[in-house]
Amino acid sequence: MAKDDLILLDFWVSPFSLRVKIALEEKGLDYEAREEDIFGGKSELLLKSNPIYEKVPVLLHNGKPIVESSNIVYYIDETWASPPLLPACAYGRSRARFWADFIDKKVFDAGSSIWKSKGEELESAKKEFIDILKKLEGALGGKDYFGGDDFGFVDIVLLGVTAWFGAYEKYGGFKIDDECPKIGAWIEKCKKRETVARVLPDPKQVYEFVGILRKMNGIE
Amino acid sequence: MAKDDLILLDFWVSPFSLRVKIALEEKGLDYEAREEDIFGGKSELLLKSNPIYEKVPVLLHNGKPIVESSNIVYYIDETWASPPLLPACAYGRSRARFWADFIDKKVFDAGSSIWKSKGEELESAKKEFIDILKKLEGALGGKDYFGGDDFGFVDIVLLGVTAWFGAYEKYGGFKIDDECPKIGAWIEKCKKRETVARVLPDPKQVYEFVGILRKMNGIE
Repeated sequence: MAKDDLILLDFWVSPFSLRVKIALEEKGLDYEAREEDIFGGKSELLLKSNPIYEKVPVLLHNGKPIVESSNIVYYIDETWASPPLLPACAYGRSRARFWADFIDKKVFDAGSSIWKSKGEELESAKKEFIDILKKLEGALGGKDYFGGDDFGFVDIVLLGVTAWFGAYEKYGGFKIDDECPKIGAWIEKCKKRETVARVLPDPKQVYEFVGILRKMNGIE
Repeated sequence: MAKDDLILLDFWVSPFSLRVKIALEEKGLDYEAREEDIFGGKSELLLKSNPIYEKVPVLLHNGKPIVESSNIVYYIDETWASPPLLPACAYGRSRARFWADFIDKKVFDAGSSIWKSKGEELESAKKEFIDILKKLEGALGGKDYFGGDDFGFVDIVLLGVTAWFGAYEKYGGFKIDDECPKIGAWIEKCKKRETVARVLPDPKQVYEFVGILRKMNGIE
């Protein structure tokens, strides 16, 4: 079989790109990450590959574009079997898709409301964010990972966004460990995986990046 | 194999329940639809089966709850192989998931903005809705169905919402056929399928139901 040609249209701090990179690392795949100039001007290849949303990440697999990060992780798992990221049974996969979708709909937007707000609005944003994490904590339960004993799809989908959690904590003035200790412990455990450690950016750089976003949004 | 026990927690006009019913019909499965009292008080079974969203549809398969309509259709296809609703190849499935997600994010909310608004707001809501349908028309292209020659997953996901299109047209004062003739023709073709005709409610009843919603929202 010819070697797979994998190009990731990327932005270093995108929680959504990070998911794809963790999945690629888990599967032991070589890929070329091409950094997009998100603010200055996106590449023609990005605009052509994702005409509906014009957003990173896009994974080009032998030239074919796959878009939307959870969808890309799903595709990676369906295309390269080992190690499996999704459960083998249809019911388990339906639960994994449910929680991935919950994370997609809730976590990043709720986190953004934290760094975008002040005063009472900030308090309400923090409450909302912690409430979402508590639901995820319920889904994690006493298990090692969201899928059970093995690291998998839902872990990857959530981990991408956790790269921003340090910034949420600092700008929001709270500690995830105090509110959701099981989620805190799960993050620490996941960060020890080589595939995750190689991918997640330095929290200080994320914090500074969010600081720039705050200035752009007139918060500071 | 023991006969599958399938219970659908349902609401007759829910675009999301309709999807699940079309998928069950396509697979030739017997099921019991239990009508929920959406406004009066949801059943304990619904609240217990879908504690995160507390919404229909929920499919109970031998007692196990599957929630979120596109996810349920996906589960049905993974559990009962024939006829297949999703493409066989991973790339085709990634495209199908992409468009199903696009429909989930856009169509029903944009349609609701039509019947919820008046005047300039209504004009802008119609424009937005038609713009979304045009994107879907682009995805349909010259094909018979979204997946190609065969009726499938994306068709089902969109068809559920089309049950409300007549109401959008009447309250919005426009014709989908004039704006997006290919989508109009696709709807007519799909409605001729027995599995779809058996499931979709009478457009007049949907129109009257949306009229009640408008009164509840203080529009009329």
